[in-house]
Amino acid sequence: MFKINSINKLIHELSQFPGVGTKSASRLTYHLLKHSDHSERLVKAIEEVIKSVHLCPHCFMFTDEPICWFCQDPLRKADGRLCVVEEPMDILGIESSGVFKGRYHVLHGSISPLEGVSPDDLYISELINRIDGDGIKEIIFALDADLEGDTTILYLTKLLENSGVKTTRIAHGVPIGGDIDYIDYRTIARALENRVEI
Amino acid sequence: MFKINSINKLIHELSQFPGVGTKSASRLTYHLLKHSDHSERLVKAIEEVIKSVHLCPHCFMFTDEPICWFCQDPLRKADGRLCVVEEPMDILGIESSGVFKGRYHVLHGSISPLEGVSPDDLYISELINRIDGDGIKEIIFALDADLEGDTTILYLTKLLENSGVKTTRIAHGVPIGGDIDYIDYRTIARALENRVEI
Repeated sequence: MFKINSINKLIHELSQFPGVGTKSASRLTYHLLKHSDHSERLVKAIEEVIKSVHLCPHCFMFTDEPICWFCQDPLRKADGRLCVVEEPMDILGIESSGVFKGRYHVLHGSISPLEGVSPDDLYISELINRIDGDGIKEIIFALDADLEGDTTILYLTKLLENSGVKTTRIAHGVPIGGDIDYIDYRTIARALENRVEI
Repeated sequence: MFKINSINKLIHELSQFPGVGTKSASRLTYHLLKHSDHSERLVKAIEEVIKSVHLCPHCFMFTDEPICWFCQDPLRKADGRLCVVEEPMDILGIESSGVFKGRYHVLHGSISPLEGVSPDDLYISELINRIDGDGIKEIIFALDADLEGDTTILYLTKLLENSGVKTTRIAHGVPIGGDIDYIDYRTIARALENRVEI
């Protein structure tokens, strides 16, 4: 674009975002060129995030304090439940349900031999270390409903077998508002297997 | 998201991009949090663009040199044609056609009373000033095919009436590969009016 090196470099960097192609990146670049005040605010915002945000040493959620606010909350500790998720973003979904009032643990991925992600690449040993003396009575797995999620749950359940902690996983089934007609057969199969008494 | 001020601010800034909502901005923010090397490269790329890119004093296209490479090219000057566009991005489309070998003039918008854009807000006086002594024989308007584009062309044609410069506009009609069945009636009407002899 424009045969201008710095512009091409910015387009390249913006196209590194997931879901952003060269065309979109060109439009974003053009927007930044046209609104230099926005460019400056954006640069400041990114720098501020890089400077202030790190992972909580207990649950590995993002935080700008020494310990994240979930881990700081005595009520959440008293709850005794720990929800294990793959990514920090997953916590937002669970929090928006308003049902869960315990603490979290972010693995930062799931076991995937195909993609070369082994248990050592995830915050698994940190999860095991947390169990002793952190008042955890139940571990709820809220991992993605795919092969990697299932593999990770299997692996962790084995590891936790003799820990005395109850392990559960969130239910898979027909989503609320879902039309049975449009749901894939594997979800239907799981919904039938996991049917609950009325 | 996450009750972290700096993260919320970054989401806000990213959602100021055209076509980026809060949900997408959260995903981009999460990507930046996860890839701090990308964040740093992006910050550098934006800063470099802010520092080095400005408008060419002749055609008002973006450039990182004192005068843009279009205006520097003696062959393009010799061509004698000047293509007037609304935005710098429009030049990319015209250049990709490979047909036009003249120079450009970017208005940076079009006259729009509804949006409060008057002729004074555009690079119109600069266009008029260019005509004398810049060897321009024909001005080709390649503005958007909407009310604002038409208004701007009408206004400029009036202004240029006695300048002795030929004024033309790009053809409107059925796009190449276009299915007549799917083309709107106004385009069909224009294509019929502007039919050319075979």
